[in-house]
Amino acid sequence: MKKYWHNCHIATMQNGRYSIIENAALITEAQQIQWIGTAADAMTQLDLSTAETIDLDGAWLTPGLIDCHTHSVFAGNRSIEFEQRLQGLSYAEIAAQGGGIMSTVRATRQASESELLLSARQRIEQLRLEGVTTIEIKSGYGLDYLSERKMLRVIRQLAVELPLTVKSTCLAAHALPPEFVGRSDEYIDYICTEMLPKLHAEQLVDVVDAFCEHLAFQPEQVERLFQAAHALGLPVKLHAEQLSALGGSSLAARYRALSADHLEYMTEADVQAMAQSGTVAVLLPGAFYLLREKQYPPLESLKRHGVAIAISTDLNPGTSPVLSLRLVMNMGCTLFELTPEQALAGVTLHAAKALGIETQYGSLEVGKKADFVAWKIQHPAEISYWLGGDLSKRIIRHGQEVLF
Amino acid sequence: MKKYWHNCHIATMQNGRYSIIENAALITEAQQIQWIGTAADAMTQLDLSTAETIDLDGAWLTPGLIDCHTHSVFAGNRSIEFEQRLQGLSYAEIAAQGGGIMSTVRATRQASESELLLSARQRIEQLRLEGVTTIEIKSGYGLDYLSERKMLRVIRQLAVELPLTVKSTCLAAHALPPEFVGRSDEYIDYICTEMLPKLHAEQLVDVVDAFCEHLAFQPEQVERLFQAAHALGLPVKLHAEQLSALGGSSLAARYRALSADHLEYMTEADVQAMAQSGTVAVLLPGAFYLLREKQYPPLESLKRHGVAIAISTDLNPGTSPVLSLRLVMNMGCTLFELTPEQALAGVTLHAAKALGIETQYGSLEVGKKADFVAWKIQHPAEISYWLGGDLSKRIIRHGQEVLF
Ligand SMILES: [Zn+2]
Ligand SMILES: [Zn+2]
Repeated sequence: MKKYWHNCHIATMQNGRYSIIENAALITEAQQIQWIGTAADAMTQLDLSTAETIDLDGAWLTPGLIDCHTHSVFAGNRSIEFEQRLQGLSYAEIAAQGGGIMSTVRATRQASESELLLSARQRIEQLRLEGVTTIEIKSGYGLDYLSERKMLRVIRQLAVELPLTVKSTCLAAHALPPEFVGRSDEYIDYICTEMLPKLHAEQLVDVVDAFCEHLAFQPEQVERLFQAAHALGLPVKLHAEQLSALGGSSLAARYRALSADHLEYMTEADVQAMAQSGTVAVLLPGAFYLLREKQYPPLESLKRHGVAIAISTDLNPGTSPVLSLRLVMNMGCTLFELTPEQALAGVTLHAAKALGIETQYGSLEVGKKADFVAWKIQHPAEISYWLGGDLSKRIIRHGQEVLF
Repeated sequence: MKKYWHNCHIATMQNGRYSIIENAALITEAQQIQWIGTAADAMTQLDLSTAETIDLDGAWLTPGLIDCHTHSVFAGNRSIEFEQRLQGLSYAEIAAQGGGIMSTVRATRQASESELLLSARQRIEQLRLEGVTTIEIKSGYGLDYLSERKMLRVIRQLAVELPLTVKSTCLAAHALPPEFVGRSDEYIDYICTEMLPKLHAEQLVDVVDAFCEHLAFQPEQVERLFQAAHALGLPVKLHAEQLSALGGSSLAARYRALSADHLEYMTEADVQAMAQSGTVAVLLPGAFYLLREKQYPPLESLKRHGVAIAISTDLNPGTSPVLSLRLVMNMGCTLFELTPEQALAGVTLHAAKALGIETQYGSLEVGKKADFVAWKIQHPAEISYWLGGDLSKRIIRHGQEVLF
């Protein structure tokens, strides 16, 4: 069905800039954008007689939002741990009580697929209500074949049940499972030779990720994982330089990673490597804020070298229980001094690039998917400006209005 | 109508602590809490035959949330200024372009009562959806008699139109209006002798507030205003020590102010003065966050001296366009190291105290108003833990469920 959307302004986000068309119009057909331009040109150039006409009442259109780094499938939550930390308990004391990431691993291993699906749906619904039309979700709280498989199956099922584009990332190398304590090399071998090939054969994996950090996996272990991923034809990305500088982002660049994520401690050499490989820098201000980090990612250097910057919720129960991508946009501005335009690029075109789908998603251009949000605002900066609350909007995915 | 609310747990917030009753029940009648206790005691001690029974399905009850410091009536927004600041423009450059607070004053002076009412309602609706049942709203973007009166009339009208308890604060001494440039003493005289008596005679004012700061009004000017307020029988509060230490909070304490607000630069002597006068410290982490402040209010000292700490959105278009009190609770925890329990006290009992209504509001106790939220959560810490999104809940005000 051909549709003519008019009475709107558009921030197309072409080239990662607002690239505004005022008094604009859009033709969609077969899930795609067929034509985009000014309403005046539409009236003179197009035959609109066969199109359904939709009046957008002066709204501002942006691409559908893309949350490119989430751990949104998990069981339990860690609010009591949040309270304990503020009461003065140390991370070590909380871990000794069975808290921390292993409490999420235990809860997730015990949960059924339907329980995981239900709680993830409730969280993702919050993101969707804000205008998210594409999401990446990682495994990584299973840490054994069956539990990782369970998570990845839930991720695939979410794409079936929701009007949402979902990218599935295998993060089996998120943390060392209790069964492998003291044997991290063996765990990496197990992922490379057993888990990943099987999960890949079941078509559950789009991308392979790992957590490169002293308390997780070392660069040489990550490199073996990346080699195994490439051998299967899978692209990679990496949690890198969050708490210390291990050169993970340079390693990621060497393996043409789609993205390296967090990046607080990255060096100038890392930035250069990422710029050369076209690897996206995914910044996660929610975790930065909640961990009260003092070390900022090298924003100035990233911008100077032209590295594409994406931002994301990092939705997870430990360090970023963030259910709002708009809040992350404000944090990108307030904490990392992105402009609202850069923040918007970070959840549209650059986020699409971090998922390897920028030819189809992330900006409003002819031939791309017709995923957009029609916001009742006066200027696109408002999307980053308001903190909390809901902005009135209509959400269109693949040319169809999404109803809640 | 007598109502029996059961199958719940209650964080009563008595004395500003969770003061939890598990497996609890509540009787409400004539807008008030008539009985509160365990379900077991209810079954043995009470005659429930005449009560309507409401099953709360295992929810956690807290007092209705109270947002005790807002500037939620205004026209326009300042998102473009937000973008300009991040593009590198200085405050001075923005002010020279006609930006800053005076742009909000101009827009608010030009707006009609119905325009102001509509936009304020839309913002307050966001707060109400999160569980806010009481709000304070300040004037202060009018800065002349008719415009301040217009704002205060809108504030009174909001209380008529919404199921919400509204406290109206006259903040005519918010900034120096253009008509009085270079004559700030005369403006204060004008407020004291003309504006305030007339607005008070029209029953538009519950409390009198001022902005005590180098760029606004000096302590001796504030003191004259406080004397005028007291002569009219009106209580006072004060924006104090946000950007510099002028001793405004000690001045507020000397005038038995309900609260002093912001307080980043307050001294130990100020804290002691407030402790002695029972003045509430209202902290505004949204503005602290958005202004990227480095100077923290003296949390440790406030706690040590037993000063009641409230937190609030400070909802305003310039320094805190915050539409979520739950986000402020998280910021209270993350930025100011309040525990979730202290954050909840800060938007319930202590916020009620900051408005002088703690005998009727702010905790769930017999004789107080039946204002509460029934949250579908596992623990009250979750209210501060999740960032963004909506938590499933039912909202009850004056014994009636609030429907949206
Ligand atoms: Zn992550
Ligand atoms: Zn204020």
